[in-house]
Amino acid sequence: MGTYPEYKQHMQKIADVKNTLAVLQWDQETYLPAKGAAFRGQQIATLSELIHQLSTDKNLGDILENLQSENNLSESEKKNVSLSYEDYNKQKKYTPSFVRSMTETISKSFHSWIKARKENSFAVFEKDLSELIELKKQETDILGYSAHPYDALLDEFEKGCTVQLLDKTFTEVRPSLKNLLDQITTQKQVDDSFLYQHFPKQDQWNYGIYLIDQLGFDKEAGRQDISEHPFTTSFNKNDVRITTRVNENDFNNMTWSCIHETGHALYEQGLAESEYGLPCGEYASLSIHESQSRLWENNIGRSSGFWKYQYPTLKQYFPEQFKKTSLENFYKGINKVVPSFIRTEADELTYHFHVMIRYELEKKLIEGTLTTHDIPAYWNEQYLKYLDVNVPDDMRGCLQDVHWSHGSFGYFATYSLGSFYAAQLFAAAKKQIPDLNESIENGNTAPLLKWLRNQIHQFGRMYTSEELCMKASGEVLNIGYFMQYVIDKYSKIYEF
Amino acid sequence: MGTYPEYKQHMQKIADVKNTLAVLQWDQETYLPAKGAAFRGQQIATLSELIHQLSTDKNLGDILENLQSENNLSESEKKNVSLSYEDYNKQKKYTPSFVRSMTETISKSFHSWIKARKENSFAVFEKDLSELIELKKQETDILGYSAHPYDALLDEFEKGCTVQLLDKTFTEVRPSLKNLLDQITTQKQVDDSFLYQHFPKQDQWNYGIYLIDQLGFDKEAGRQDISEHPFTTSFNKNDVRITTRVNENDFNNMTWSCIHETGHALYEQGLAESEYGLPCGEYASLSIHESQSRLWENNIGRSSGFWKYQYPTLKQYFPEQFKKTSLENFYKGINKVVPSFIRTEADELTYHFHVMIRYELEKKLIEGTLTTHDIPAYWNEQYLKYLDVNVPDDMRGCLQDVHWSHGSFGYFATYSLGSFYAAQLFAAAKKQIPDLNESIENGNTAPLLKWLRNQIHQFGRMYTSEELCMKASGEVLNIGYFMQYVIDKYSKIYEF
Repeated sequence: MGTYPEYKQHMQKIADVKNTLAVLQWDQETYLPAKGAAFRGQQIATLSELIHQLSTDKNLGDILENLQSENNLSESEKKNVSLSYEDYNKQKKYTPSFVRSMTETISKSFHSWIKARKENSFAVFEKDLSELIELKKQETDILGYSAHPYDALLDEFEKGCTVQLLDKTFTEVRPSLKNLLDQITTQKQVDDSFLYQHFPKQDQWNYGIYLIDQLGFDKEAGRQDISEHPFTTSFNKNDVRITTRVNENDFNNMTWSCIHETGHALYEQGLAESEYGLPCGEYASLSIHESQSRLWENNIGRSSGFWKYQYPTLKQYFPEQFKKTSLENFYKGINKVVPSFIRTEADELTYHFHVMIRYELEKKLIEGTLTTHDIPAYWNEQYLKYLDVNVPDDMRGCLQDVHWSHGSFGYFATYSLGSFYAAQLFAAAKKQIPDLNESIENGNTAPLLKWLRNQIHQFGRMYTSEELCMKASGEVLNIGYFMQYVIDKYSKIYEF
Repeated sequence: MGTYPEYKQHMQKIADVKNTLAVLQWDQETYLPAKGAAFRGQQIATLSELIHQLSTDKNLGDILENLQSENNLSESEKKNVSLSYEDYNKQKKYTPSFVRSMTETISKSFHSWIKARKENSFAVFEKDLSELIELKKQETDILGYSAHPYDALLDEFEKGCTVQLLDKTFTEVRPSLKNLLDQITTQKQVDDSFLYQHFPKQDQWNYGIYLIDQLGFDKEAGRQDISEHPFTTSFNKNDVRITTRVNENDFNNMTWSCIHETGHALYEQGLAESEYGLPCGEYASLSIHESQSRLWENNIGRSSGFWKYQYPTLKQYFPEQFKKTSLENFYKGINKVVPSFIRTEADELTYHFHVMIRYELEKKLIEGTLTTHDIPAYWNEQYLKYLDVNVPDDMRGCLQDVHWSHGSFGYFATYSLGSFYAAQLFAAAKKQIPDLNESIENGNTAPLLKWLRNQIHQFGRMYTSEELCMKASGEVLNIGYFMQYVIDKYSKIYEF
């Protein structure tokens, strides 16, 4: 009773149901007919409940308890057991009635967020959001924390992440980034209008498929489809699905979302098959996941070396559209920096102000120094302060993200951490892989992928974000790498 | 404890999981990447196990037990409870160890069937099939029967169906059909070569989408995709999915499979939403399901009236291909009768010999008067006897159907019953709907769909096949309707 194989079997059963739920969600975003939405919601709720039951099953608890004193386990087996035990105990903290109120409030909030967006009025969303935040505050007590209640929520998305750590990081990065941005905005601006010509849908789709293949996405172990918002989901390492969207008047949109999602997908396709269903077969953390998508999207996909090789092929796909644009101007255009209202459309520099504003706001909401009523004013003031833009309305302001309506507080910071880890990992890769730049300029990103597989992908949750960063780069997160990367890049593009 | 709402809730939970399993299976046939197959198999097995657990849950048994003496139930509520209780008790008869051996043997058999087809040798399949038949024989004992062991298996697919009933039906139909076939084969043959020109994939696809829309398929409550073998699946009445396949050199293949699957889909889209998860929200029986697909495919989709209206549009889709073919010759061509080896490619007349041969063979295998060793010889002898064709090899003979390898013994007969019910229902519809022929000739099949919704679809399992047939047509199954239909049709086409 309570052997490792029994534990594994139970975990794999849970994974099968979780991955099945992911299939339902993937289908919902890609192929679900309009009238199927209501029953699909019900099916998803039923599966979620089953997953919660299986994950808090007393039998699993007993097995895990028993395995605590088992001495014949390998390092990774021990890690699996200890992480599963942590997960199990965390799950057990939630009472069924709390889970039910949370589910109901989230469902309500999501609908009022949709309504609020339609009416372009934060007030429509405020009451439900306020209720949701009260529940999130209760959740911080349920989960427990030592220094700051927001820590409990941050830990959900990024194990070990705290207000103290993020405050330190953002305090360091904020003035340097602001300084760089001010320098850029006073220089001569670059032209990216060539990206907004007419690019036929099918040609864009074909080019996207070409690109994901070039980057090493295994099309026998995954596929790409169309959805309203691009995303990556994985049902196991042999079935990883990405989506994209195509806007015929915007080449930007499809292309870098393809590369971004491919970055996520390469990580999922690189997890260990033998660890299916176990922590060591799962991604390490959201920030590490994001480091993979950002590394491919930005450090590779917006680099001059990558396009040195890829631009001639791109011109074959769209000879008319790029006829008059030199490689140099293409490179500059795709890296244009423009302070704006919308996070998901931001360049890789101003992006972090969007994140930092949200982080500060969430922190204040959870600690109670701001209320939902204060959100629009605070939001708009911060956008003016850091990005020098006047937010015109709630739609383009505090209603733009779906995260809060899903109950996700503590998520945004991982986006920035992802970029910071990406810069540090890419710097390490360049040191460790002979001729990496040359290889990328010759269209060969395979050595980089191999390095990421060895340094990051294969380990799953065996190591935390910081441990992976240390193993791969020799240091914990050092914001200097990211700052060096953006200063080098933009000083050349904007010539200062 | 044990109220109707509790029963309903439990049943809907089971339905959610069953429908989720159906999503996994749909995805497997349409979009699953090659390497995803193994884990998908595992996910399906896990969900199947969960469904079995939920369906045999003691709590459900207690609720059902309690509801037996509940007096305040409506007729349909009583029916739901009594059918669920029957289903429950049937499920409980299977021991976990029997379910496990069956699952394993089926999995093994399916793989050896695939292998046998590759090697074109029944011998490769024989051992596993023989094991599977032994288990099916055990299953007849588990389920129980009074007259013939095969009855227990027939009842799985068609409640109340017995060897006695089928023997009577087939004995009646066999000589008349054989006689008609002999008459046809001595007449001047019709030309259908125009169906085998080049029909571009995208044009066929577009025409298929046009057709399913014409027939009343609600595209907001379902969709069509491509798969290797066409099928219909339903996740609830608002999400019914059909698939088709396109062969560029065969117009026949896509077109009538679209109509056939639409017939199945219209039934599913017509079930009662309020009865989701309950017997009265499920299709009545396989033969009634098949009666719907066959009625649309044959009685409508191969009728001169339907094409009188549709042929001009078809010619717009394929102006070159049908330039030289008159409506009359088109109608004759799509109804060409040719004895052949392959069931799924058979015309609507010889089709029933394929079914009757399989029925007799299965009956003998289950009663033990034939062994698996005898299958190829028996098969080939029967094809020569009834269809006058020499089966060239096992692939085109006894290895052609997937059914046995799935453990489905007792299924085939429902295909023929479906055609027979279709003819009888269509005759009744013509009597009861004023100007039905005229309406069809004007491209309006809505009155027929409405009639089927009222007579068949809305009831779910409230009535058995025979009860539905009686309610709709005033008699139980009468083979005379089918015979009259084929004699009328083919005597005109073949001019005798």
